[in-house]
Amino acid sequence: MRTCYTGEVSPSHLDQTVTLFGWVHRRRDHGGVIFIDLRDRAGLAQIVVDPDNVAAFEIAEKLRNEFCVRVTGLVRRRPEGTTNSELASGEIEVLCREIEILNPSVTPPFQLDDDNLSETTRLTHRVLDLRRPQMQHNLMLRYRVSIEVRKYLDALGFIDIETPMLTKSTPEGARDYLVPSRVNAGQFFALPQSPQLFKQLLMVAGFDRYYQITKCFRDEDLRADRQPEFTQIDCETSFLNEEQIREIFEGMIRHVFSTVQKVELPAVFPIMAWDEAMRRYGSDKPDLRVTLEFTDVSDLMRDVDFKVFSGPANDAASRVVALRVPGGAAMPRSEIDAYTKFVGIYGAKGLAYIKVNDATSIPDGLQSPIVKNIHGQVLIQLIERTGAQSGDLIFFGADKTKVVNDAMGALRVKIGHSEFGKKAGLFVPGWKPLWVVDFPMFEYDQAEGRYFAAHHPFTSPKDGHEDYLETDPARALAKAYDMVLNGWEIGGGSVRIHRADVQNKVFRALNIDADEARNKFGFLLDALQYGAPPHGGVAFGLDRLVTMMAGAESIRDVIAFPKTQRAQCLLTQAPSAVDEKQLRELHIRLRTAE
Amino acid sequence: MRTCYTGEVSPSHLDQTVTLFGWVHRRRDHGGVIFIDLRDRAGLAQIVVDPDNVAAFEIAEKLRNEFCVRVTGLVRRRPEGTTNSELASGEIEVLCREIEILNPSVTPPFQLDDDNLSETTRLTHRVLDLRRPQMQHNLMLRYRVSIEVRKYLDALGFIDIETPMLTKSTPEGARDYLVPSRVNAGQFFALPQSPQLFKQLLMVAGFDRYYQITKCFRDEDLRADRQPEFTQIDCETSFLNEEQIREIFEGMIRHVFSTVQKVELPAVFPIMAWDEAMRRYGSDKPDLRVTLEFTDVSDLMRDVDFKVFSGPANDAASRVVALRVPGGAAMPRSEIDAYTKFVGIYGAKGLAYIKVNDATSIPDGLQSPIVKNIHGQVLIQLIERTGAQSGDLIFFGADKTKVVNDAMGALRVKIGHSEFGKKAGLFVPGWKPLWVVDFPMFEYDQAEGRYFAAHHPFTSPKDGHEDYLETDPARALAKAYDMVLNGWEIGGGSVRIHRADVQNKVFRALNIDADEARNKFGFLLDALQYGAPPHGGVAFGLDRLVTMMAGAESIRDVIAFPKTQRAQCLLTQAPSAVDEKQLRELHIRLRTAE
Repeated sequence: MRTCYTGEVSPSHLDQTVTLFGWVHRRRDHGGVIFIDLRDRAGLAQIVVDPDNVAAFEIAEKLRNEFCVRVTGLVRRRPEGTTNSELASGEIEVLCREIEILNPSVTPPFQLDDDNLSETTRLTHRVLDLRRPQMQHNLMLRYRVSIEVRKYLDALGFIDIETPMLTKSTPEGARDYLVPSRVNAGQFFALPQSPQLFKQLLMVAGFDRYYQITKCFRDEDLRADRQPEFTQIDCETSFLNEEQIREIFEGMIRHVFSTVQKVELPAVFPIMAWDEAMRRYGSDKPDLRVTLEFTDVSDLMRDVDFKVFSGPANDAASRVVALRVPGGAAMPRSEIDAYTKFVGIYGAKGLAYIKVNDATSIPDGLQSPIVKNIHGQVLIQLIERTGAQSGDLIFFGADKTKVVNDAMGALRVKIGHSEFGKKAGLFVPGWKPLWVVDFPMFEYDQAEGRYFAAHHPFTSPKDGHEDYLETDPARALAKAYDMVLNGWEIGGGSVRIHRADVQNKVFRALNIDADEARNKFGFLLDALQYGAPPHGGVAFGLDRLVTMMAGAESIRDVIAFPKTQRAQCLLTQAPSAVDEKQLRELHIRLRTAE
Repeated sequence: MRTCYTGEVSPSHLDQTVTLFGWVHRRRDHGGVIFIDLRDRAGLAQIVVDPDNVAAFEIAEKLRNEFCVRVTGLVRRRPEGTTNSELASGEIEVLCREIEILNPSVTPPFQLDDDNLSETTRLTHRVLDLRRPQMQHNLMLRYRVSIEVRKYLDALGFIDIETPMLTKSTPEGARDYLVPSRVNAGQFFALPQSPQLFKQLLMVAGFDRYYQITKCFRDEDLRADRQPEFTQIDCETSFLNEEQIREIFEGMIRHVFSTVQKVELPAVFPIMAWDEAMRRYGSDKPDLRVTLEFTDVSDLMRDVDFKVFSGPANDAASRVVALRVPGGAAMPRSEIDAYTKFVGIYGAKGLAYIKVNDATSIPDGLQSPIVKNIHGQVLIQLIERTGAQSGDLIFFGADKTKVVNDAMGALRVKIGHSEFGKKAGLFVPGWKPLWVVDFPMFEYDQAEGRYFAAHHPFTSPKDGHEDYLETDPARALAKAYDMVLNGWEIGGGSVRIHRADVQNKVFRALNIDADEARNKFGFLLDALQYGAPPHGGVAFGLDRLVTMMAGAESIRDVIAFPKTQRAQCLLTQAPSAVDEKQLRELHIRLRTAE
């Protein structure tokens, strides 16, 4: 049996005989001696096979990369000058006494330490790709996160209750994955988009505190950070208010970072109203590592002789913001041009700016084609309000509010993360969590001419906002909260509606009539009638959280067997065609056959 | 905020003011005072509302069953003679100072303590059904089992790695649940029947020790103890042999019983070869609480003048067994008749028996129509071999081996569990685990004229049995093992094949040709070529294990939202019809429309 993991052999084993299992990571022949870097999930150790040991040496000569072997040998100190401080085992080596080939390997299609593999190669040969130390690390990290989440929640009395994977299709929000029923011809299960309704039902059933780390499914067009199946840390509790719920889950993330990442997050996460986040950062998930902020200047620009500004400044659905970039006057023209193009992606029609050459001399110290159109008094107020100093640059966004927020919000992050931004101290590395709260209940969809739930239709309005549901839905704020970390929404939740009458009001605001509500959510409405407790919860995206903690580029790097952006598994070749017999049993046939 | 759970108020809170949240389990008005049994997930507490407290009394008068309330009050000792020793809170009561109705309830469709509800009622109103203390207990127990499993495995270095839910259909074994792909027209994912291949790939990828508590899916006709989706504790480890693997998982079950059930299972579980289990109990999952055993008497019956016995006795594919029932001579004729009918279910054509009135006087002391057809010498040997005593009864099974094993194996259990059996000491209550090992690799299917994998096609043959794969498959034994508890298989596993050449031999023995093997399992065969480590594992059925520990009658009693035997969810009405638009997007249409 194994003495310890290969990567764990250390000076504490000196002069001891150890037995190790692992894979040949590299073999070198040097001065008649064979050196093997043996690898397992814990890391590498150096095995030395001396030609005096004829039996072992003969076997060692046959070894190629990725052979699986058992090695027994004596742990000794490496000769001076040959130690490797990057390895736990870097000071020692194992003098091989006996070696056994447990399974040979054909030549792998790539070197495990090749960092330039295409994703197609990696996913096709996923089993070998997973042997790479980085992938081993990522999946171990993922495990540590999930087990620490469980420990934390267990200690607080949360219990893991499994909810169904084969459930009911409720076409609202994302597209469902469907599963045809064999027993019930013509009917379909849906894979859950989230356990939302079931966890609420568990609260009504009195379980008080629930969690689950579970797969959810959305059949959407995939972006870089999306997968058809993804994993949610799903939690719900009864009898707590918004603040109490946030405190629990803020503590959970703090615990995970502290135990797994050895990072202490702030003892209290900042809390920011959605409205303020949009105003200051143009985003409901601001990356607070970037120190830049918007300055609202709509009021200043109402009377300027510059339509690009005065138009939006006089439109309630638009805004004009300034984004002061300290030291930005030094930015080369090419970079400004690139940013102008960049904001175009978000619908901005241009990117006005002012170089502040001398903040004490206005307007002469300001350099910009637009300066001439703006009264001196306005310029003075502008410089004052933005706090611009000599050497700064001020960008402007002026358009429909959504365009300004999207474009200038993205620009803010882009500049912060740029080489310029990092040099200029506009980016403070580290972990910057915050809560964004007081979301609106509804978003109005111009195209469809109706309101949609900003969070989901089971979110409670803030106290005092219940009446707005009927009188002025746009004004109703929700007891909803997102946890944002470094510009990503890592979790979100809300206090739920626990009264059937309020739930019905929300359905009406969403244009869901009584019949439809009963047909889709009758079981929830029924449950709410039987003394449903006040309750609320949160769901965290495990894939995203671990991706950030691992510093990985894609969530595919923290999932053992992910799908491509075409929703395919290159390893197993799923999805695939199935037998006609199977389709017949499921009472369906292909349209392609038409 | 809550002081503690309602069910946890105890004498330690005496003279303290507590705040409790819960549901009105019962309200009684007695002597002008209102008594409320308040319930939460931890249990009940008695609230006393005095008419002197006018505000609280007025609210209390409105309370009905299942109202959700908050209560604040003083903990005091119950008056003598009114204590309830069945409750943790039985010695105390809470004198209500303040009460708030958090949510009223309409009248529930049934009383929560009604034990005679139909399953249809319970599943339709599942949310209320889940409020019943028994269901709360069952799901808490389920959680404790799963968290203790995780703790145990974590301590041994097992890591939880998620495997895909949307995977490839490999029509072998049970029917797959299929998921049509929208992006890849005409193709389908399958929901996993188990993570078997993925966990093997994770071993090849070097993760060394894996576990997952995960949903699996089989679209089979449902029996009482089956669900379309069920939960498996799925584990795999590298570099260990059969005994070492069993030791780990035997320890896991011992740990779970010790921590959750407060029961110490045997320090070492008995190990029984499959062959012996079939010989002695006619079953590969013998219930060892039943003390009865088969006695093989084929050799004795070869020359008897009784075709029913001599026929099977002279046929290699048949057997003749005796089942001695101590004290069974006292069994009434009606019971014997019932057993005769019972064995018929399993294909037995009758149930011969001998009453041993006087074991010292043969044949006169034996009472049976068949005695006259059997030589005295044989009868003497029979009595000797079975160890029958005066007052015993001997049943006989004589037929094809499978029929005898099924019928007499079931009869053995039936008698053991009967009132008679319990009185006669043929049933020893408690927990009787064992390992059944040395399973055959293959089972021959007469109808299809080919071998099937007894365990699954990735199971390693025993050392020295590899050659039988080609020469005599029926003789090949597998490194497979089942953990059996009280007559149920609660887990099973095997050492897997880690060499591609052996895997190919097994595929050939199963009539899976090279093309089919590559098409279905190419990714496994590929993986085995890259230094796959020796590995093996096990999977436990969580639903069944918890059902047994909870003493529940059905696995539906340990699943929050189960399906009926028609694979329907009565709560949400899944499966259901879906929009034509959804079907179009998935490139399928209903056959029912044809």
